Amino acid sequence: MKLATYRTDDNTLRTAVLVEDGYVDLNRTFDDLPTDMTSLLALGEKALARVAEASTAGSPMPASAVRLTAPVPRPEKIFCIGLNYADHAAESGQPAPSEPVVFSKFVNAVAGPDDRVPLPEESQQVDYEAELVVVIGRGGRHIPRDQAMQHVAGYCCGHDVSARDWQLGKPGGQWLLGKTFDGFAPMGPWLVTRDEIADPGQLDIGLRLNGQTMQDSNTRQLIFGIDHLVSYLSNVCTLSPGDVIFTGTPPGVGMARKPPVFLKPGDTAEVEIAGLGVLRNTFVAAGQ
Amino acid sequence: MKLATYRTDDNTLRTAVLVEDGYVDLNRTFDDLPTDMTSLLALGEKALARVAEASTAGSPMPASAVRLTAPVPRPEKIFCIGLNYADHAAESGQPAPSEPVVFSKFVNAVAGPDDRVPLPEESQQVDYEAELVVVIGRGGRHIPRDQAMQHVAGYCCGHDVSARDWQLGKPGGQWLLGKTFDGFAPMGPWLVTRDEIADPGQLDIGLRLNGQTMQDSNTRQLIFGIDHLVSYLSNVCTLSPGDVIFTGTPPGVGMARKPPVFLKPGDTAEVEIAGLGVLRNTFVAAGQ
Repeated sequence: MKLATYRTDDNTLRTAVLVEDGYVDLNRTFDDLPTDMTSLLALGEKALARVAEASTAGSPMPASAVRLTAPVPRPEKIFCIGLNYADHAAESGQPAPSEPVVFSKFVNAVAGPDDRVPLPEESQQVDYEAELVVVIGRGGRHIPRDQAMQHVAGYCCGHDVSARDWQLGKPGGQWLLGKTFDGFAPMGPWLVTRDEIADPGQLDIGLRLNGQTMQDSNTRQLIFGIDHLVSYLSNVCTLSPGDVIFTGTPPGVGMARKPPVFLKPGDTAEVEIAGLGVLRNTFVAAGQ
Repeated sequence: MKLATYRTDDNTLRTAVLVEDGYVDLNRTFDDLPTDMTSLLALGEKALARVAEASTAGSPMPASAVRLTAPVPRPEKIFCIGLNYADHAAESGQPAPSEPVVFSKFVNAVAGPDDRVPLPEESQQVDYEAELVVVIGRGGRHIPRDQAMQHVAGYCCGHDVSARDWQLGKPGGQWLLGKTFDGFAPMGPWLVTRDEIADPGQLDIGLRLNGQTMQDSNTRQLIFGIDHLVSYLSNVCTLSPGDVIFTGTPPGVGMARKPPVFLKPGDTAEVEIAGLGVLRNTFVAAGQ
C-alpha cells in the first residue's frame, strides 16, 4: 500500500491511502484509524490491515484535488547516513567508512512532494542528494540485525538537500547546520509499505535535475544495508514509530562535478526510486 | 518564576509553578493554562502573567510528593554548542571557533532531575559536561541579534552527557551518536523565566561528581553569547517554542584530566548554575 499525508483546505493534516481512482481518507472511512501517520504507524500491523479494508470500502478523492505533504510530517528523529555508497564516498574523497556515519536534520527541514524549497541567502553551494528513506514502524532498542526488518514500516523517496559551504566549511566539522535549513528534507510522495518491496537492497535510484539525469545507481551499492542501519542506530537510541533514516546518496552530486553544479532558483529536482514513485521539488529564491 | 513539568501517579505529564510551599498545578488552577510546557511557551507573555496569578491562587502540592521531569520533556529541537568556553576549547586541543560549532541530540536523550541515567554497554568513555540551557519562547526565523533575547523564555541547568569514544572515535567525525544515547540530556530542575536572571552572561556554573568539584566557571567565559546563538541558529532553522540550546561546557571535563575520569555506575553528578538550582543525576549500569 501507499500511505500518504495530505493537507486539507483548512490547513489540517490527514492520512490517506492511494487507490486506483485517487486517495481514500482513512479516518473518514473508519473512525478508528488516526489522522496522523505517526499514530497510525504506532498501531502496527493490525492497523495496516484495517487500512487495506479502508482502501476498498472508502470513497476516493481525485488525486488532482489532494495536496500531499511528507508522508511522516513530523518525525521524532531524522537520521541521515553519510558516505553510504562506495562510489559516492570515493567522489567525496573519503574512504568507505568502517561504521555508519550518522548525522541528523531537524523537523523544520521536512518538505513534501511538490513543495517549493527556498534556497537560503546564507549559502552559495546548495547541492542535491537522492536518497532511499526508511520509515520505522515498531520502535525498539537493541534490535538484532536479523529482526530489524520487522521494525520497518516502509520506504519513500527522500532528498537530502545540502548546503556544502555550511556542511564542510565551518569550524568543528559538524554537518548538521548545512543539512537542516528550512525545507532541506523533502520526502514522498507516499510511504510504500514494506510488503510491496521485495528487496529494498535492489532498487534503481536516481535524480534528474531539470530533466537531466545527474544520479543513476542502485541500492545494491549501499555499504551498510537497512537491517544493519536499523540495528546499529537502535544500539544508541530507542527508535520510535515514524522515525526516518535517510540512507545515503549515490554518486553524481553537484559538488563532485567539474565544474561543480549547485542549485539555483527555478531548478527542479526529481528523485525516483523503483517502486516508490517520483519526488519532485522546485527550488526558489529565499522569500519567494 | 520557576516552571516545572511533573509526572503524575498515572504517568501523565503536567505543568506546575514552584511556590514557597511546593508546586501549584497550572491547569488544575486555571483550566485555560495547558498541561504541557511547549504549549504553554507557545502562548507567550500573557500566559506567563496568568501563571503568576495561578501561583498565588492555587493550592500547592508538597515538593516531596512531586516527581519532576525535564521542564520541556519533548523539545522539537535540541541544539548543542561545542567548544563555546575558551578554556574548554583549549583543554580539548581545539582552537576557539570563529563561528558556533553546532550539533544535536534527539529527544530520546532527554532526562529529568533525579532520573537515573544508564551507562550504555556500547561505551567505555562516558563523560560529564555542565551546561547552561536556553529555552526558546517565541519562535522565529532570521531573528536579529538585538531582538534575540525577546525570543528566550528562560533557562535551566543541563548536562551534556558525552560518550567520548563514539563522539570522537568513529568515521566521519560526527558527534551526534556519542551525544544522544538514551538519557544523555538531563535538564532541570525547572525552567527559570528570563525576567528572574538579570544577566545570563554572568552566572557561576559548575559540576560536582560525587561531591567533588570538577567544573567551576562562569558564563562570562562563553565565546558566543545567548543573543548571538539564538540569532545564528535562526538564520538556518525556524525556531519553535520549547526548542532548547545547550550552550557549551566550561573546562574540567573528564577526558581532559590526567588520568582521564569517566563515569561509572553509582556516580552522582550535580550541575549547579547560579539562580537556576541544582540538577542531580545518578549513573547506573545499563539495564538497571
